[in-house]
Formats: sequence, structure tokens, C-alpha cells
Amino acid sequence: MDPQPILVVTTGGTIDKAYFDALSEYQIRESVIAKLLQIANVTLPFRVEESSRKDSLDMTDEDREQLRERIARAPETHVVVTHGTDTMTQSAEVLQSISGKTIVLTGALAPARFAESDAPFNLGMAFGVAQSAAPGVYIAMNGQVFRAGEVRKDRAQGRFVPI
Amino acid sequence: MDPQPILVVTTGGTIDKAYFDALSEYQIRESVIAKLLQIANVTLPFRVEESSRKDSLDMTDEDREQLRERIARAPETHVVVTHGTDTMTQSAEVLQSISGKTIVLTGALAPARFAESDAPFNLGMAFGVAQSAAPGVYIAMNGQVFRAGEVRKDRAQGRFVPI
Amino acid sequence: MDPQPILVVTTGGTIDKAYFDALSEYQIRESVIAKLLQIANVTLPFRVEESSRKDSLDMTDEDREQLRERIARAPETHVVVTHGTDTMTQSAEVLQSISGKTIVLTGALAPARFAESDAPFNLGMAFGVAQSAAPGVYIAMNGQVFRAGEVRKDRAQGRFVPI
Amino acid sequence: MDPQPILVVTTGGTIDKAYFDALSEYQIRESVIAKLLQIANVTLPFRVEESSRKDSLDMTDEDREQLRERIARAPETHVVVTHGTDTMTQSAEVLQSISGKTIVLTGALAPARFAESDAPFNLGMAFGVAQSAAPGVYIAMNGQVFRAGEVRKDRAQGRFVPI
Repeated sequence: MDPQPILVVTTGGTIDKAYFDALSEYQIRESVIAKLLQIANVTLPFRVEESSRKDSLDMTDEDREQLRERIARAPETHVVVTHGTDTMTQSAEVLQSISGKTIVLTGALAPARFAESDAPFNLGMAFGVAQSAAPGVYIAMNGQVFRAGEVRKDRAQGRFVPI
Repeated sequence: MDPQPILVVTTGGTIDKAYFDALSEYQIRESVIAKLLQIANVTLPFRVEESSRKDSLDMTDEDREQLRERIARAPETHVVVTHGTDTMTQSAEVLQSISGKTIVLTGALAPARFAESDAPFNLGMAFGVAQSAAPGVYIAMNGQVFRAGEVRKDRAQGRFVPI
Repeated sequence: MDPQPILVVTTGGTIDKAYFDALSEYQIRESVIAKLLQIANVTLPFRVEESSRKDSLDMTDEDREQLRERIARAPETHVVVTHGTDTMTQSAEVLQSISGKTIVLTGALAPARFAESDAPFNLGMAFGVAQSAAPGVYIAMNGQVFRAGEVRKDRAQGRFVPI
Repeated sequence: MDPQPILVVTTGGTIDKAYFDALSEYQIRESVIAKLLQIANVTLPFRVEESSRKDSLDMTDEDREQLRERIARAPETHVVVTHGTDTMTQSAEVLQSISGKTIVLTGALAPARFAESDAPFNLGMAFGVAQSAAPGVYIAMNGQVFRAGEVRKDRAQGRFVPI
């Protein structure tokens, strides 16, 4: 339980969606993660890096490889990744080739900018798992911690379930 | 990472403070924990029990003993305790006599009813640690996971620090 | 300043937009107006009716005529209309044929479900104008009260301005 | 309906209450009014002045006289006053000696910092009345506009009612 610094990598997804009246549409914009961590009074050292900024359905193999390299070469061994929910499990599997790090993917079913969103709870859960779990890749969603490769998103029900 | 059910025990504290205009004062009322877990879309089985409902400065040895017994005899091995921050470390030490359970205490520096509160992040962090850490007693505050006995509240700065 | 009951007519628009993860998109759903009025502790008698539920760019002449008839035949003389911002001024002009009623149109540039939205302020402004202004049709947006026919939306800047 | 600038005078009260963990208590601090007006996208010219910063039960005759003078000598003819609810009606009566200005008092039953507060709605209502009503002194609370001298706070029920 040494206070190891945490690297937070943002990739886009619903958690960072905003609404633009001029376009009457939703877009992913500058991450709200730093704001959420400030509201949570986080004093543990952390660093936020943006790896991509898109819907996870639009993430390419190149995006995933770039994410993998960014995490592999970072000095931190405790990593939180914010990610769109639709391909979160796919990215988790790509990250399994990294050894010696505890990597936790999380996101949100409702944008963090909503008054009622799962974003702050999920980000907190990821911070807890990143500090407590053995090295490996995890997904923290719906109040539950899953190992990469043992979880899928039930799109119809809008939730993550074990496989 | 089996989906073990979580027992959430509420004891009062700032996290559950509300404001009553008729009295022009702050009081601890019915817990908001269930509401926070609903907003977080938690599908992991959980159960919420109220052990006490007071400022943690007003908690007595009897309150702590009752809390200890409630957790010890519960069927769940994963436990989250919401607690006032002023004597959270003291209660954590009392709970160390319980073996074979992962117990995580958390709370908030701002009431959960505030638009900006550390409550949802902290509750999420506790859910993550309860599922990931070895049996023992932990405190999850300020984005950091501490072992019971290795943390104190720095009241002047309003944050938890290692000792 | 008799406590005249207020009729609130909802027509859709950004104020009532929600986000649906399963579709990764924004949609207009059941109105949040009743919830906003409850949070505001409104004790003045009011009634909420849905006239349409769409983007204001999709409103047809029939939708506007239906809105006009609904308001004309209602017993209330104080009326608030929630409306999408893109064609709010157009609907306001259609409603000018109704005499003897104070009708106030308002809406929001950010969905009411956002933590930071102009929706509650705007709805409050409309309630204030409906009770205070002479019969006629008004638009209440950006903290300002405009007469129908004397206002346009500056789409690039996302605000209402006098003409 | 010329866009007359609005003077907002803050006096303290529940609307501006914050919570301080270090003291485990509620205090009135720097006003949130400017933040509320920014969230509401107010483009009408306005100016915010602090006249006092206390519970309205602690307001003295001197505080009320100072408030009256501040408003009387201000260049603006449209004035919004944020005020604690317990003596709002009393201050309203003192302000009735000012002629030629539309003065609207409002406040909140729950602090503006709460996720669910009547503050933004009430402030919007006051802005609407300040621009629409004839010169005089008004109270805008509970979705209703009252004339000074014709309203009292029903403390038990936590709402304003006609007398």
C-alpha cells in the first residue's frame, strides 16, 4: 500500500461526452477526468494523458497499439484507463501483453457532465483496484471488478456481465 | 474475482448530512448510499445496513462494538463502511480484530447531497478495494488506499495522510 | 398578483434531451419539467401538458397549430412553454394570435439532465414573467425577457439577441 | 422590455451556505450567485454587490438600512436581492420606501451548492420579475410572486404563503 503514483490515460468514450447546442449534437471533448479527481480531493500523485478522443466503436487497431505502447513505456506501474464501453473488453485484451503493471479500464454509461452519472463512482473504483489488485488487466464497471477476458458488455441491458 | 456480495454498513458522518431549513442547521438523515449505488448502475449484489446515525465525534465505544459485532456475524466477507472522517481511523483499528474479511472504511469531506462531493468517488473506491484487496481493514480516502493503523486525518488540511 | 395557476406546455427540445448508451445517442424523452418544479419547491398550482416531443427543427406547421389551440382553449391565462431554441421565435410569433393570456416561451442550451444547465434558471424566469407581465407573448432566455417578434437566436454564438 | 441592466445585491442566507469539514459546520461564504448566472448563460448586463454575509436571523436594523441605501443610490432601476428566508419579508417592507425601482427579493430553502436546490429557479424567477413587473417590492419564492407586505414565511412548512 505504498502511495504509488497513478497514470490515468483517457481515450474518449461516453464518459467525456458533452453537448453542443450549435450543432444540436453530442461530441467528445476535453476530458473531465481532472475535474472529477479534483472534486474527489485526490491527493495521491497522478498524471493524466490523452491517448485518443473518440467513440470506442471508432477505435482502430492503431489506436489500441498506441495505447498499449503508452502504458508499457510509462514509469507508473498503476494505471487507470478511461474508455468507451462498447469496445472496452477488446482493448483490455490487447493490454494483457503488458506485464508487471496493474491496469484498470473503466468508463461510464452516462456522460460525466450529467447530474446523475456513474462516472465518479467508476473512476473511484478504478483507483481502488489499481492500488489493491495484483498486476494484470481489469475492468471496473457496474460496481464490479472483472478480469480481462472474463467479461462482456450486454449491450441490450447496458451492463457488463461475466462470461 | 468471483462476484461476492458486498455488505455496506452506514454509521452517519458528513457523507449523509442534509440541511434543514426549518432549523437552519445540518443533520444526518436517512442514508444516501442506496441512491449513490443506483446512480452508479451497480449490479453486483449488495445489502445496506444502518449501524448508527451520528457525527463520528459522537460515536461511543458501544457504537464501535456494535459495528464490530454486526460485521463479524454478517455472512458477507466483503464489507464497506461509511463513516464520519473524524474518528474513522479509530473505528478501523477496532475492526482489526475481525479476521477473514476485507473491510474498507470510507466517507466524505463534503455531503453527498452537494453538487460537488467526494462521496461517489470514495464509495466507488471502497467497492473496488473490497473486491481486490487481501483480508484486512483499509481506509479509502483522498484517492488513496491506506491500511488501518497506518493513517491519520490531518484535520487542519482536511485530508488523510500516512503515519 | 393573485396566485393564478400556471399551465406548462412541453414541446421537446434540448431541455428534455437524455442520453442513451445502448444507442450512443441523444434523444428527447419524458419531460424533466415536473422534476425541476419539485426541486424548486413550487407550491403555486400548476399543470404540465405535453404538446409534442421533438427537436424544434423538426416541428411542423401542424405542431405549431396544435400548440396554439391547446393554449387557446386551456382555462389558464398564465402559460409557460418549454421549446427547442432553434425555432422558438417562430412558434412565439404563431402564438401572438392568442389574446388575453401571458405566454412565456423558454428552453435551454444544455439539457436539464446536465449538472450545469441553464434549464432551472430559465424555467424560473418564465414562471416569474408569466405572473408579472401584461398579456402577450414573451421569450425568456439568457437572463433576458424579450417580446415575441423582437428577438432572434444567434446560432453561431448560441444566444438570443434583440432585433 | 429594454434590456435594462440588473443589480444583484447579496446579503447571505441559506442560498450561500457552504459546509466546512474542518469545523463540521455550515457557514455562509463567498456568494455563488455569479456562478449561477454564468451557468444560466446570462448575457443581460448585471452587477453583483455584497451588502452583508450572514444568517437573516442575525441581520440588524443597521444591515437593513445599509441595504436600503445601497439600492436607493444605485444607478440600476431593476434590482434582485438574495436574502435568507427567515426575515426576507421584513427586509422587503423596509425597501418599500424606495420609489421608481422594481426590487425582487429571493433566496433558497436548500443551499445553492446542493445538487438539488431551489436556488437557480428562484434566481431566474427574480430576474424575470425584475424585468416584467411595475416598480415596487416583490418576493419570489416557491414558484410564486408576492407583493411585499402580502406574504409571510410558514416556518413549520418551510414555504411562503399569502397573508
